[in-house]
Parts: sequence; structure tokens; C-alpha cells
Amino acid sequence: MVQIPNTPAPTSPSAPRSVPTSADVARLAGVSRATVSYVLNNTGAVRISEPTRRRVQRAAEELGYVPHAAARSLRAGHTRMVLMPAPPVPAGPLYSQFVHDFQGALSRLDYTVVQYGASGLHGDEAARAWAELRPVAVLVPGPGLGPQGVAVLKRAGARAVVTLGTEPVDGAHALLTDHAGVGRGAARHLYARGRRRIGVVVPEEPGLEMFSAPRLDGAREAVHGTGATVSPLPLAYTEESAAGLAARWRDLGLDGVFAYNDEYAMLLMSALQDEGVRVPEDAAVIGADDLMLSRLLRPRLSTVRIALPSARGLAELVDRAVRDPGATPESHELFEATVVQRDST
Amino acid sequence: MVQIPNTPAPTSPSAPRSVPTSADVARLAGVSRATVSYVLNNTGAVRISEPTRRRVQRAAEELGYVPHAAARSLRAGHTRMVLMPAPPVPAGPLYSQFVHDFQGALSRLDYTVVQYGASGLHGDEAARAWAELRPVAVLVPGPGLGPQGVAVLKRAGARAVVTLGTEPVDGAHALLTDHAGVGRGAARHLYARGRRRIGVVVPEEPGLEMFSAPRLDGAREAVHGTGATVSPLPLAYTEESAAGLAARWRDLGLDGVFAYNDEYAMLLMSALQDEGVRVPEDAAVIGADDLMLSRLLRPRLSTVRIALPSARGLAELVDRAVRDPGATPESHELFEATVVQRDST
Repeated sequence: MVQIPNTPAPTSPSAPRSVPTSADVARLAGVSRATVSYVLNNTGAVRISEPTRRRVQRAAEELGYVPHAAARSLRAGHTRMVLMPAPPVPAGPLYSQFVHDFQGALSRLDYTVVQYGASGLHGDEAARAWAELRPVAVLVPGPGLGPQGVAVLKRAGARAVVTLGTEPVDGAHALLTDHAGVGRGAARHLYARGRRRIGVVVPEEPGLEMFSAPRLDGAREAVHGTGATVSPLPLAYTEESAAGLAARWRDLGLDGVFAYNDEYAMLLMSALQDEGVRVPEDAAVIGADDLMLSRLLRPRLSTVRIALPSARGLAELVDRAVRDPGATPESHELFEATVVQRDST
Repeated sequence: MVQIPNTPAPTSPSAPRSVPTSADVARLAGVSRATVSYVLNNTGAVRISEPTRRRVQRAAEELGYVPHAAARSLRAGHTRMVLMPAPPVPAGPLYSQFVHDFQGALSRLDYTVVQYGASGLHGDEAARAWAELRPVAVLVPGPGLGPQGVAVLKRAGARAVVTLGTEPVDGAHALLTDHAGVGRGAARHLYARGRRRIGVVVPEEPGLEMFSAPRLDGAREAVHGTGATVSPLPLAYTEESAAGLAARWRDLGLDGVFAYNDEYAMLLMSALQDEGVRVPEDAAVIGADDLMLSRLLRPRLSTVRIALPSARGLAELVDRAVRDPGATPESHELFEATVVQRDST
């Protein structure tokens, strides 16, 4: 069944009917609609005399006429819009910075990034909703999109589909986010520091499983066959939850913990300290992301730094893909995970 | 002069020409284009027999046809799109949460929120770029948009324009963000705690002046005429900058500081402690935002909590404005600032 998401409400009879059109501009300027289009779209294809150009521009200004991106994209077959679905969880500091820098880099290449809000649709169904905006490229952060969704987007004119995730998707370029590698690095570090009973924080907040599950798997993999153990530690991002975990700490018999990221590490470390559990002596703690706060905590927090490639490099990848939509999909590692040892491990 | 931002590149000769259209669907299903449109847009206006409906849907699925939002908005005059320009700085934790909740609430009312990336354009020029997408409503976080930009958006069919800022804009609904009130609350609290020489952190990061300037003004206003002083303290979000300020602390002769927000407060407090300046004895420190970290720091950080109205309430305001585009613009206070005293003041 074809589902039609986000169908607009039918035009209400009270809809304003005074939106000026290019025909109004043409009438006021005394030129053809084609001339209006040539002038206002700055196409170099046709020479327009300077007085005519000025007349059209004055008329457009007087009427408050703004070209319709929709109409233009209908003519051109596509827009300069790079669509990014908004992530299903509030953006964290790393992702906010990434989106900000990436937007800046793409805007210097004359694209506009549009973040499309969560619509309650998932995977290939969501792809139909995105396709309706006829983006020239789509960058999908997170899982769910399959080969069918990629095909829907391409048939709707998207010249490039790029996914961020742990696995490539058929037909799309892939930026691989190796969350398992983050967990592997953290657990290896704890093991190297002599820890043998390792806890791994698994946030209880919905939407984070796509990151926490592979991080846990990576930690397990790192100590596989060594005799060391890895135990998942469910933790909500509240002081109560952290205090509860800290109160049980001695019974758990753990000597090290990979705390999912720096923010959960700060939460847990504070609760452990309140409980009299010494960091790192009784519990070595390592976070991830290398946020500023990891350097400000006492003891200073060890962390897994996740270096992203330059926003400019990623923007150029998108631009290359748009220019050559038939090219074989590229696959790139997005994360470079390195352990930064400080005083908490 | 009318500037036409973001003109799409002319169609390249290699543009895919195989994007299926509703005409293709009509041909395959053996029905008229109007019938395809009735079926796929779910308009209840016309009764279509179930076998025909199924034939159209099968044909659309087979061809991979997705309706074009642009074409639909050309017919309907508007979309269900609420456009929010992306802020000029990476989103902080409060704003990320706000956008996330607001998107959810609007999506339950059948709108889609689209965050429009910074285009390098400002104010009324930027409004023209936004207008090209023909959003049904626009929510502008931050200053720059003037009455002219509001008019451009409305002429392009936006039924509601809502600004977030310190002052209302003619023709737009206003959500007033009283940053001065945040500074006022912080300085009043420091004064009440006996502090008379108050520093106010002014972040050096570009794009934050729109928040930091009114916060500083509010702090000055709060102690005006009391004999207490307020001194601006430029600070970059780096350990080096904070260490420099901490090293000069005793020479500055200050006894209290409003640290702009909780993150700058954490940065400064850590540097003061490293320098042997006691918090709160030698320097009372207050932040703003009431982030989780304010409760996790030792001493626990006093802060100005900024309560936002419910996302649902704001979404309903937008919906009301869309339904009644002729209504007199409403003005609402967005912030409710209250001081939370903990151990750092």
C-alpha cells in the first residue's frame, strides 16, 4: 500500500489569495512571465537589457514577490536542499557542533541544509515524506532506512543518499559510525589498567540503544577470552538512579566502568564519590566524547575521544556525490576513536 | 534591489529524467490524473470506488511514485511546514531539548518542523530565502527579522510568524525571552548574599552577544543605586582563558560572579579552585540554565532556572495562529527565571 504521509489539509476557503505571482510582476513591469523568470532566477542563459532588468526588480519589490522554491524545483527537477532527518533524541553537544559545522561548510558550497523534524514515521515510510520535498541530497543519521527507502529517494530526484550508521545500506554512500570501536577502546584501556570486572553503563533513556548496544558489544569483544567480565549497568540520567547504582556498587564487585559517555560518567562519578567509593582506586571510570567537562572534573576524567573528519571534507563528499549520481557508493569510517587517559582510570 | 538567494543551479543535461510522475501512474492504472490526485492525496471531496483506489495505489507502488510536496503546495497555497531557522551558534542543551519537544508536539498536530540551515543571509534577506519554501508558519529564534521580513513571509503565504526575542516585531506573534531578567535575578541573589563587587562573565564566542549583553544589562540594573558594582569579565570557553581569569582574580577584588550559564560556571569554578580561590567564601559563583551538571558539581552550583512553557502549549499557539491568520499578534513571556540556591553562593 502506498501511504501518503503528511497530506496537507485541503485549502480552507479563508486562505489568503493575495500572494503575488510572477504574472503580477510581469503585468506591472510590462514584460512577459518568461522575462520575469529570467531576471529573478539570474539565469545567464538569456541576455536581458539593464533597464528591463531594473523594471522587473522594481516591480517584484513593489509587490513583495518572492519566487516559489517549489515552482523552481518543479522546473529544475531538484533543489539545492540537503535534507537531514532530525535525530530521534535531543541533539547532544557533539552532534550539535557537527550539524553546525556541516551546515556552514555546505552553505559555502551553495547548498542549504534542512533538518526535517521527526514525523512519527520510520525507515522507508519516512523516506517517502522526505522525498516529497525533492531534496538534491539526503543525509540520514541513524538506522532504519533500507535499500527500498534509498530507491524511493533516488526516484524522487535525490542525487545522493548518505547514511550514518554501523552498516552500509545498498545504493547509498556510507559514513560508518563505529560505536563498537568506542566500547572496545574503553574496555581495552580498563583491562590494560588491571581491571577485570568491568561494568558498562547502558542508558535507560529511549532512543539511545542504537549507540549503547554496539558500545556494549565492543566492550565484550575487547575482553573476550581474557577471563575478564563485562556487566551491563542500566542507568537513567537522574541523580536518584545514579545514587541507587552507587549504593549497590560494593555488592556488584566491579572494579572499572565504561560510563557510556562523559555526561553519564560525571553523573556516576559524583554519586560514587558521595557514596565514598574512591575513583580510580575502587572504581576506574572512563567516559566518551572528550567534552570540556571531562577535563574539568576532579579527578580528571579519562575518555574515548571521537574525532570526526572535517565538516568541509564531508560537505565535499556530498557535493561530489551530487555531481556524479551514478558513481559507485563510497564508504568512509566517520569515527576515529582514541583513548585519552587522565586521572579517573 | 530584490536579491534572489540560493538560486538552484540550472538543470544539468545529465539530470535523471526518470522521476515518475502522476501522469505515469494514471497511464499505468488506466485512469485520469485527477483520479490519481484524489486517491493519493486522500481528499475526501470525491468518492472513488475501492477497486479504482486499489488500482491507483498498486500503480503508484509499482512505479515508485511519491507525490511532490512542491506541486501540492502550489495547489494548496501552503504546506503543513513550520520553518525554524537554525540558530547561528551550535544548539546548547536547553535549546536542543526545546526543539525536540516542540517538534514532537507540532507533529502530533500534523505539522512538520523544518530547521532551515544558516544561509549566510540575515534579517529580512534571510526571510526571502525562507519564504521560498512557502511554510505555513515560521518561528524565528533570535534577532534580525524586522517588520519588512514579516511582511515578505506573510505575502508568501505564511499564516503565522512567531519571533523569539527580547522585543516584539510588528506583525508577528512574540515569545519574549527576558535575558535581562536572568541577569537581574543572578545579581539580586549575589547582592542578597552580601556580595558588593560583582563580576559578570561575557563569553568571547561569537554569536552569544544576543544573550550575554542583556544578561549583563540586567545585572547592572539589579544593583543600580545600591553602591555595589558590576564588572564585565570576558571569558573564552577554554581552560587557558579560565586559568588566566582565575590567576587575576585576587587583583580584580571581586567577591561574586554571575558566570553567564552553568557551563561557563563549571569552567570558571574549576579554574578558581585550582588557583586556591575558595567558592563561595572568596568568590560566590552562580550559573544559569539549571543543567544536571549544576547539581553534580562540588560545591553544588547555584543557578538561575529558566522554565519554558510546555512544548504542547507553544505548539497550540502556533496552530491557533495558523487557523486565524488575521488575529491580533499575541505576546507571551517565554522565560520564567527563578534562582535556585545551592552551595556555591
